[in-house]
Amino acid sequence: MSVVRGRCETIPGVLAKDSPFLRACRREPVPYTPVWYMRQAGRSLPEYREVRAGVPMLESCTRPDLITEITLQPVRRFPVDAAIFYSDIVVPLKAIGVGIDIKPGVGPVLDSPVRDAADLEQLRPLEPTDVPYVTEAVATLTGELGATPLIGFAGAPFTLASYLIEGGPSRHHDKTRALMYGDPALWHRLMSRLTAITTSFLEIQATAGVAAVQLFDSWVGALSPADYREFVLPHTSAIFTALAAYDVPRIHFGVGTGELLGVMRDAGADVVGVDWRVPLDEAAMRVAAGTALQGNLDPAVLLAPWEVVAARARDVLTRARAAESHIFNLGHGVLPDTDPAQLARLTDLVHEATAQ
Amino acid sequence: MSVVRGRCETIPGVLAKDSPFLRACRREPVPYTPVWYMRQAGRSLPEYREVRAGVPMLESCTRPDLITEITLQPVRRFPVDAAIFYSDIVVPLKAIGVGIDIKPGVGPVLDSPVRDAADLEQLRPLEPTDVPYVTEAVATLTGELGATPLIGFAGAPFTLASYLIEGGPSRHHDKTRALMYGDPALWHRLMSRLTAITTSFLEIQATAGVAAVQLFDSWVGALSPADYREFVLPHTSAIFTALAAYDVPRIHFGVGTGELLGVMRDAGADVVGVDWRVPLDEAAMRVAAGTALQGNLDPAVLLAPWEVVAARARDVLTRARAAESHIFNLGHGVLPDTDPAQLARLTDLVHEATAQ
Repeated sequence: MSVVRGRCETIPGVLAKDSPFLRACRREPVPYTPVWYMRQAGRSLPEYREVRAGVPMLESCTRPDLITEITLQPVRRFPVDAAIFYSDIVVPLKAIGVGIDIKPGVGPVLDSPVRDAADLEQLRPLEPTDVPYVTEAVATLTGELGATPLIGFAGAPFTLASYLIEGGPSRHHDKTRALMYGDPALWHRLMSRLTAITTSFLEIQATAGVAAVQLFDSWVGALSPADYREFVLPHTSAIFTALAAYDVPRIHFGVGTGELLGVMRDAGADVVGVDWRVPLDEAAMRVAAGTALQGNLDPAVLLAPWEVVAARARDVLTRARAAESHIFNLGHGVLPDTDPAQLARLTDLVHEATAQ
Repeated sequence: MSVVRGRCETIPGVLAKDSPFLRACRREPVPYTPVWYMRQAGRSLPEYREVRAGVPMLESCTRPDLITEITLQPVRRFPVDAAIFYSDIVVPLKAIGVGIDIKPGVGPVLDSPVRDAADLEQLRPLEPTDVPYVTEAVATLTGELGATPLIGFAGAPFTLASYLIEGGPSRHHDKTRALMYGDPALWHRLMSRLTAITTSFLEIQATAGVAAVQLFDSWVGALSPADYREFVLPHTSAIFTALAAYDVPRIHFGVGTGELLGVMRDAGADVVGVDWRVPLDEAAMRVAAGTALQGNLDPAVLLAPWEVVAARARDVLTRARAAESHIFNLGHGVLPDTDPAQLARLTDLVHEATAQ
């Protein structure tokens, strides 16, 4: 008999809450290590490029038909164990009227970067009526996905603040740290507003039916642990505390966060995402007991021949045994040049190598 | 009597080899903690912007008069304990004929990125006659600087490889890692050629009279420790081993290298540079005995009010007591918007706070 693996909706009677992904989030025994990929929906898929043709990024995130289609595309193609809600971290900012757009090949660009207290006024609370397409798409998706869990999506306050302050993408977020150090009162006011917006964005998704949430603090690795504790932790903690009222595991991810894994867990995450720089056995030592880990194959490995992918994926799985629970993922998003066939084989490898 | 501090050439009879900077590199007792700043010569100084007006970056690195002037500018302005040779990491590549230029506001851009073995042919060995301006400027500078040590400068092979492979600056150097994973034989051939060029570039500077060298592996923090050991360590080790024949302390620096501090020391560095993400007391635990540390005030702190700068500089000095020896520096280069007056006050603060 072949190993039962992949999308649970194909197994009659299995509910999302019993899915390997959610069981792994809760550190319960699993039939195999669940798999999903950050940016599994995206430029690496020809069907994505097709539906996005001529549609600007932020428009695609506000059309329920496209959100639904793009979220489902990788689930149709690969036997992944979760879907990730298709969105962008600046969607809630755009939804409350912040002048922001995503320039192809560049990233989010602000009309007018945040410089002083007056600039905070535009950051009003996010209401469900600001993002009706989110509620609608989540409802459609949970119906379509059956027992495959849908993960909610939001950018974290530090990362949002970095775009607002820098005015666009930047290498080291120097202006962000300069404002943080130089005007802590303004910093915390900005972060409080972004925390309210992020919390609301995730609560809207949880209310609409997502089974878990992931908070993407992509650029928080620019901070030392002490600065994370002082300038970020109170805000991410507030988000995770608010979400405790919902029955959704909380995943917390950032890039270059080797020094921060412990404190990101302290913020209240059930699952900590690990990038490719820190081996999972080492990461397991850096987080408190009661933490599941997610990760952490280097996405650049997928551009190498299959033998390299296989060897490195097995190494991740071996090291993951040191974790209380493990969700297989990449250490960052799927790169646009990735061959989808590699992702398909990788998904099978993880399922087969870990089948109980 | 006021504290004796700063440029040693002002103290009759003091030789460069007895300077606080070189004593600290050798982990010998010092009268005060020596200070210099990465990019102390650069856009933060009005006199730099004046001499660079209308002169392209790479041209300025090939004119002995400008190299000398720009290297001396911060030494005239601040009582720093060392000068850093004004150059750019791509200078030796340009000198052997690689089609590369530095675009203002962007960084190094290649005419034709390295993709296969044929592309390696252009990376021929660097000869002293390729960089006569380096030899000439070092000779002039050591005369002008007297007892203030001159630090030689080179980019490390991984960082050079990242520009050659990506074709320009990139956020995560994904193509670089993809080539490294996917074609290790080509990778090592590329790294061997870059190692020969870098070694030669530093030997030329050492022969001409620099008192120490710093190898800038700015972007190597993109790697895990295991990958550093396999793909980079043999090459940086070869560079430092070759330099052991010269009486010059070897400083090794990269950004985001918290996970790599131990193995960067293993490569043969006498001094390991630490960025702002890892406190120096923690960094001291990560390197072997017999290592001096350099760093690590966040350069963004200098954009904050002086009270913040002072408090954070004192914190760096307190944590540095855990190191066997300490050279004060920033965790990365001086930012262009930095007020030179802040650097002047900071230099005095470090000298006065640590005077024995």
